[in-house]
Amino acid sequence: MNPTDTSPRAQVIARLLHPRSIAVVGASADLAKINGRPLKHLIDKGFGGRILPVNPKYREIAGLACFADIASLPDGVDMAVVAVPAREVVASVEALGARGVPAAVVFSSGFGEMGEAGRALEQRLADTARRAGVLLCGPNCLGFINAFENVYATFSQYADGETGPGPIAFVTQSGAFGTAIAALVRQRGLGLGYFINTGNEADLQFAELMLAVVEDPRIRVAAGYLEGLTDGDGLVRLAQRCRELGKPLVLTKVGRMASGARAAASHTGALAVEDAVFDAVIRQHGVLRARNEEQMLDMLEALAQPRVCEGFGLGIATQSGGAGVMMADRAEEVGLAVPELSAATQQRLAAVMPAFGAAGNPVDVTGQFVARPELLRESVVTLLDDPQVHMGIVWLQLMTAHVDKLVGIFEEIQARTTKPFFVCWVAAPAAALQRLRALGIVVYGAGERAVEAAAALARHHAGRRRPPQALERSAPAAAPAGAADHQGMLPSVQAAAWLQAAGVPMAPVVLAHDADAAVAAWRYFGAPVALKVESPDIAHKTEVGGVLLRLDDEAAVRAGVATLRANAARHAPQARIDGVLVQPMAAGHVELVVGVQRDPVFGMVVMVGSGGVLVEVLKDVAFRRAPFGVDEGLAMLAELRMGAVLDGVRGQPAVDRRAIAQLLADLSRWAAATPRLAELDLNPVRIGADGPVAVDCVMVLRDPPA
Amino acid sequence: MNPTDTSPRAQVIARLLHPRSIAVVGASADLAKINGRPLKHLIDKGFGGRILPVNPKYREIAGLACFADIASLPDGVDMAVVAVPAREVVASVEALGARGVPAAVVFSSGFGEMGEAGRALEQRLADTARRAGVLLCGPNCLGFINAFENVYATFSQYADGETGPGPIAFVTQSGAFGTAIAALVRQRGLGLGYFINTGNEADLQFAELMLAVVEDPRIRVAAGYLEGLTDGDGLVRLAQRCRELGKPLVLTKVGRMASGARAAASHTGALAVEDAVFDAVIRQHGVLRARNEEQMLDMLEALAQPRVCEGFGLGIATQSGGAGVMMADRAEEVGLAVPELSAATQQRLAAVMPAFGAAGNPVDVTGQFVARPELLRESVVTLLDDPQVHMGIVWLQLMTAHVDKLVGIFEEIQARTTKPFFVCWVAAPAAALQRLRALGIVVYGAGERAVEAAAALARHHAGRRRPPQALERSAPAAAPAGAADHQGMLPSVQAAAWLQAAGVPMAPVVLAHDADAAVAAWRYFGAPVALKVESPDIAHKTEVGGVLLRLDDEAAVRAGVATLRANAARHAPQARIDGVLVQPMAAGHVELVVGVQRDPVFGMVVMVGSGGVLVEVLKDVAFRRAPFGVDEGLAMLAELRMGAVLDGVRGQPAVDRRAIAQLLADLSRWAAATPRLAELDLNPVRIGADGPVAVDCVMVLRDPPA
Repeated sequence: MNPTDTSPRAQVIARLLHPRSIAVVGASADLAKINGRPLKHLIDKGFGGRILPVNPKYREIAGLACFADIASLPDGVDMAVVAVPAREVVASVEALGARGVPAAVVFSSGFGEMGEAGRALEQRLADTARRAGVLLCGPNCLGFINAFENVYATFSQYADGETGPGPIAFVTQSGAFGTAIAALVRQRGLGLGYFINTGNEADLQFAELMLAVVEDPRIRVAAGYLEGLTDGDGLVRLAQRCRELGKPLVLTKVGRMASGARAAASHTGALAVEDAVFDAVIRQHGVLRARNEEQMLDMLEALAQPRVCEGFGLGIATQSGGAGVMMADRAEEVGLAVPELSAATQQRLAAVMPAFGAAGNPVDVTGQFVARPELLRESVVTLLDDPQVHMGIVWLQLMTAHVDKLVGIFEEIQARTTKPFFVCWVAAPAAALQRLRALGIVVYGAGERAVEAAAALARHHAGRRRPPQALERSAPAAAPAGAADHQGMLPSVQAAAWLQAAGVPMAPVVLAHDADAAVAAWRYFGAPVALKVESPDIAHKTEVGGVLLRLDDEAAVRAGVATLRANAARHAPQARIDGVLVQPMAAGHVELVVGVQRDPVFGMVVMVGSGGVLVEVLKDVAFRRAPFGVDEGLAMLAELRMGAVLDGVRGQPAVDRRAIAQLLADLSRWAAATPRLAELDLNPVRIGADGPVAVDCVMVLRDPPA
Repeated sequence: MNPTDTSPRAQVIARLLHPRSIAVVGASADLAKINGRPLKHLIDKGFGGRILPVNPKYREIAGLACFADIASLPDGVDMAVVAVPAREVVASVEALGARGVPAAVVFSSGFGEMGEAGRALEQRLADTARRAGVLLCGPNCLGFINAFENVYATFSQYADGETGPGPIAFVTQSGAFGTAIAALVRQRGLGLGYFINTGNEADLQFAELMLAVVEDPRIRVAAGYLEGLTDGDGLVRLAQRCRELGKPLVLTKVGRMASGARAAASHTGALAVEDAVFDAVIRQHGVLRARNEEQMLDMLEALAQPRVCEGFGLGIATQSGGAGVMMADRAEEVGLAVPELSAATQQRLAAVMPAFGAAGNPVDVTGQFVARPELLRESVVTLLDDPQVHMGIVWLQLMTAHVDKLVGIFEEIQARTTKPFFVCWVAAPAAALQRLRALGIVVYGAGERAVEAAAALARHHAGRRRPPQALERSAPAAAPAGAADHQGMLPSVQAAAWLQAAGVPMAPVVLAHDADAAVAAWRYFGAPVALKVESPDIAHKTEVGGVLLRLDDEAAVRAGVATLRANAARHAPQARIDGVLVQPMAAGHVELVVGVQRDPVFGMVVMVGSGGVLVEVLKDVAFRRAPFGVDEGLAMLAELRMGAVLDGVRGQPAVDRRAIAQLLADLSRWAAATPRLAELDLNPVRIGADGPVAVDCVMVLRDPPA
């Protein structure tokens, strides 16, 4: 199924998801039980391939020949469902490998989710599967559904009802929450093409499975529910592939807050990703994040409809001025425009609704359209015709007595425009919902939710229009002499020179070994200088009284050198002192903090934040995965709440955002090519008329984890 | 109905809302029309009093005797519905007054909502009604319902269905949005006791009508929808009365953002209230704000159930670890605690669910309870028994095959605890919803929404426990000589002295008329001083180079006086110069801005915000209506995002929050007693080891609007 990946592993994943024969190991004759339900669903839903129950207790189950053991299975079985007690799973997987069955879905629980012993058993299972050549989905999972081919390798309650197929592929790490979301998809009249629960992910992980199904041309939207993530590269590859395919990827991930993260850690074996980094990286790669299951469903409804949204302009027509205000407010909050209408549009609207004079956006059509349906129809069509309007929302309520009339109006509007529009019908009669959905018209029950979904649609199509990031990781940057295998903090002068060579503007700095050298450096710079103690053992110089500012005569410089050595001797008596750094005072009225961290999930991540006290108090920071270009750097600056300071407050001049973005981009490219970088702080980076300059730099090198 | 108000106006409002006879002016024989629908509803729903249609065209409508004109009406009619064209309304109201009908509900539109001419007509209507002694609800309204007494003075579509009665009073400024909310109340299985649409509020306003119905002992919860507000005092009185009655007041108000405020202004005649002030003042008075109609409904469900919530501790039991994490995250965001459980509770839980070892909060009961219902029952009861847990949420999904079993479990839990608990059942079968609601158990469809509703319940009961603010407005503060009728900016020295006398700590200041006096003042203070130009024409001294800091020798002070005069002459040549202010430099490492503004709706409002550049960039400010006590002052500081700075960052000591709160409270009392105060800025207020001191002060006096 996956034209981009023809590896043997990809071919096995294809056999797993599109099997022509399925063994059910541990099959029960009680079709209501976990180990009986897959048989029931496969039969009831009409799976066209072979179903091969395995259980020594039976000769036959539900009319199917039952095999005594795995060894007795015929040749060419594509995959097995394993539904035996935890203690028997390893042996079953070993036997499957021996019999040549290349893939298994393991329902059994009692692994990584059950403490130390469970984790050890899961490790043994993973090792066994690898050795035996069996690909695993699970353990501790509900299995999966491929609704196109009636593959029900699952015991999820979701399979009990109507199950599609439809244009959405849904992959979930949680069984219970995933079932809930699948059921909500059904309630909304949408359909799932695939439902996959990855469970403990001992082998196959979320991104790899999603990557396999998103290629299916019948899939238009990818949706995922995450609790933890270890394979950041996989997720980024998935996001990039979705983007190439033009298919939106919507993710919900729990664990935003400290307390939540704690609970997640006790719930899954996965390493909790720092949420701010996760959030930044997925947005960087065009993923839409839904904050909860309701928002996910709202987004899926908007994204599953086929119309393209060419911009961020939202036209709103309502039956209530207040609802219009509420939606316009929300639109502004989520980054949509509610544009003023052109003079031509206003004239047309005034002609439709003469009583209301100049008509703006939102358009208040009032309740009069009940008597005169053309009022609603013509005003919405006119609104959508405006060149600044790229999509529309029509708000109305109740109208139990007018469902026929209104459905007819919306059908006409649908035919007369190619722009996407949503109906928001509060307290809608059930018949109205059903009939509009049957016409392919998206309906919401609340105004703010409709607006949020519209924003998701606009963002998705804006992402499609943006040229993809063509950044190749550069070849690993040559480390300067001594840094190639250095462990720990690199001396400042060496670190600064390396960054300067990579294009990062660094304040000039000289390492003086004694007072004479410091005075010579001050004379060389010909300007007030800062003195800073330099030691491989001191990362935070100010904490040991190791920084003196604005020295501008010989006596002060000499005294300063003595002071720094005395302070270091008092506050850090064990520290080796390399000397004193001499640096001209940096100009610039704006201060930022820039840094790089090697994230355990996503690798090198660049951060920029407000400088000074604020970075600690407000946590006003933006992240991006390295490498990235200048546009992403600009986007990072736009995310800062302190961004207005860059444009000049209290009479200060604006600074050059592009120059800062260039610094961020250059730094990101260097970081991505420097795998031994563990941490980097440029704090502060000062920005004045001459652009940004990094004043201080702490760089820590360490071999990356294997 | 209102024991606190026995005024004639209150008695007329009571006749309006509890009439024994209703005239319908302009009644139509077509009961589907706006002017026929009230007759239909009054008859169909069984209104027990007299119904008196008025229309010269008919002798009889729907079996009721029809009167030719208002003059022909019998004596003692309690109220009239007026449903005639706009141009006939004034004459009708005049005739009603002449006939002794004391109150009218005016459906007719074509008034303030329709531009200049409409506003003039509305003014004429209001004047006529006052002269004629007729109380008005409307115009441009849907009317009202008193469901307890089957009074249907309305043409709202909501009346077409089942209409209660129930424990909720709902008053709405919007007809269409209000109808939508009423319909949602019905969908949730809740009931309205009153539904009142206030329309253009030419006479009776939102707060006065709500105040009348909230007294009804059958009402447990008050809910309101607002688009604009002019009577701030009325809203505060309403909030205070709700608090005395122990009844929650939930408000939704549209117009949060700039664009929204614009649309609201074009939609209603009401003056748009600055939303941040509105938000702060209603919270100060214990009002719960719902951000939209869905959140309002979620809150109403929680508040309409009778159980009391004794604290902010939330216990969560789920069938999905991820759902637990999501709810715990949201709980933290909305100010609830998800407490660690006591050792005793953990032991009891471990006994219930031995496989899971130490059991925390959230409790993950997994899907096993389907086989063993006692697992869910006992774990939820145990969780709710924990002394740190004040309310509970149980999360589950789908379970179509287990509705009976689960409903039974929840009924048992309900009987075994007195603490409030909500069921969150995602994709619940319709039967489950219906049966749980019939048992009085509150059910939500999404976890985060359940948590938000729980937070509203906890806040409501916390507000009931807090002793009411016993602040009397003090007698008007005696203005110092010259300030009593001063218009405009008051000289700094005079303003500072006045505030100092009111208990606000002000930095010492001396007005020096020449350099000799300035030097004498500097000697007197014996410390570095600031010099500031003083002029009634200069509000922003720094903008004219009018401030010099840290002067500490005679020559510098003399030169400083000359510099300030020269700068003023250059930058503000027309300004009258009173002299130079001499002030010792204020200590203190934290800077705040404190101010007072006379809000057109709520009167004196005190503000505190982050000082420096931040107040402009971050708008990090908190508001309260004056007067208030120290506790509210502390609450204001707790709202500041920069609050952590008060507790010491980067090695700085913490400052005394209570001393700042005392300053805010003292200032608020003085401001409330100083009606001529138009604006006050204390900027900066510096806070160090000795507490806060206001360094600079700009005070503007102006006669209050009539």
